[in-house]
Amino acid sequence: MLSYHPVFEVFASHRTIRKFTGDPIPLENLDAIIEAGRRAPTDASAQMGTFIRITDPALRSRLSKLSGEQRHIIDGAEFFVVCMDVFRLRRLVEHRGGEYGMGPLISLLFGITDAILVAQNMVVAAEALGYATCYIGGVQNNADEIGTELNLPEGVLPVVGLVLGVPAEGETEKPTRPRIPRQAAFMENRYREMTPELLDACYQAMSSYHRSGDWYNALKHYFTSEGSMPRREPVLRRALAQQGLLPE
Amino acid sequence: MLSYHPVFEVFASHRTIRKFTGDPIPLENLDAIIEAGRRAPTDASAQMGTFIRITDPALRSRLSKLSGEQRHIIDGAEFFVVCMDVFRLRRLVEHRGGEYGMGPLISLLFGITDAILVAQNMVVAAEALGYATCYIGGVQNNADEIGTELNLPEGVLPVVGLVLGVPAEGETEKPTRPRIPRQAAFMENRYREMTPELLDACYQAMSSYHRSGDWYNALKHYFTSEGSMPRREPVLRRALAQQGLLPE
Repeated sequence: MLSYHPVFEVFASHRTIRKFTGDPIPLENLDAIIEAGRRAPTDASAQMGTFIRITDPALRSRLSKLSGEQRHIIDGAEFFVVCMDVFRLRRLVEHRGGEYGMGPLISLLFGITDAILVAQNMVVAAEALGYATCYIGGVQNNADEIGTELNLPEGVLPVVGLVLGVPAEGETEKPTRPRIPRQAAFMENRYREMTPELLDACYQAMSSYHRSGDWYNALKHYFTSEGSMPRREPVLRRALAQQGLLPE
Repeated sequence: MLSYHPVFEVFASHRTIRKFTGDPIPLENLDAIIEAGRRAPTDASAQMGTFIRITDPALRSRLSKLSGEQRHIIDGAEFFVVCMDVFRLRRLVEHRGGEYGMGPLISLLFGITDAILVAQNMVVAAEALGYATCYIGGVQNNADEIGTELNLPEGVLPVVGLVLGVPAEGETEKPTRPRIPRQAAFMENRYREMTPELLDACYQAMSSYHRSGDWYNALKHYFTSEGSMPRREPVLRRALAQQGLLPE
């Protein structure tokens, strides 16, 4: 076996970039990125991901607003809405006279998994070619309306957005973002709850994440009861109901 | 921008491999694979994935049984249970006196996403070094019992397993698995339902997937009402309830 491959430099230098030059991605490169995605693993061959490439400027502008006024959705060369899709699977089964049998929970688990496997291959492929990438969790701010905009049938749900483009000058020289200590996320044989010391070590390791020097200011902004994530829960519930994926 | 990078050969030659030599992965390589995973994108810095490396042979044997008697879980050099984890996020928020606010649906969506982003970076890294990889969806056959075995607290759910190892001779020369036509999964601006012709084209493209020459025999086995996936729905429901993640 090898002990090195050039892709490790791609992994090591990954950072989310939100500033783009406005240059397009040549079709040849976009093809290679999509093909890398298509070769991703898929559960039981079902390929439960659908990618909607947004080329209509007016639609892109509406999706940017629905995702929380994210300018980089408009500025990037390409914007995809990454969807989990069990509608296609159902059509494929019924096309052959089968009785489709997937429930909503297992659909969500394997559908999100399949979609993200494709998306992450595309991200690694794009970055390997020198492009910048940015996932857009903000599609969850209005996943129900985005579903309507994109005419998504039952069984299809927007999971994340994905922006690809040419990075603006200097963007790839910025420091990469920190991560929590390895032992907090990689364990052996049994789950190990974090000690107060390890919690402190996480905050220490992540201190450069927020301009204040305190990672808690980012976590508070997103994940506390006054944060933005709890506001997405009823939206996702509505979106799941609308898309026929809400567990009863 | 470049128009080629060696990682494209890794994507193009990806195949799931279930036969291993039994040789270990040297720690230096395993370190590089895990580090590639740690550098994956993460939603809002939350790092909602936890990987449990199974090194205890008795535990690995029990997990293999609970996943449906999958020999390759035992035969591979490494086996990880890939978990979504919002327990750690809650601990981090509460450690600083915050009121944690994430609901179960948005936890599932972003938690599964984060875990798979890390896992797929590890897969690409492992394959770049020449190792074989195999995702194990079968952890969903008994996700509740696996949660108990691994002592997973509330907010942590097994998503998939991941086997890494040295491929047995000849395994990397086998043909790669087919994919549905690009236009069935990549669309522009709006969802486009498949015509009967495109459904047929999917079956045509996928015919080599099943030894019978008919992909439907695979889809039937997994996804119809008599298939294996519907049996996983109540298990996942139990697992979600047990792990405090069931949407009410």
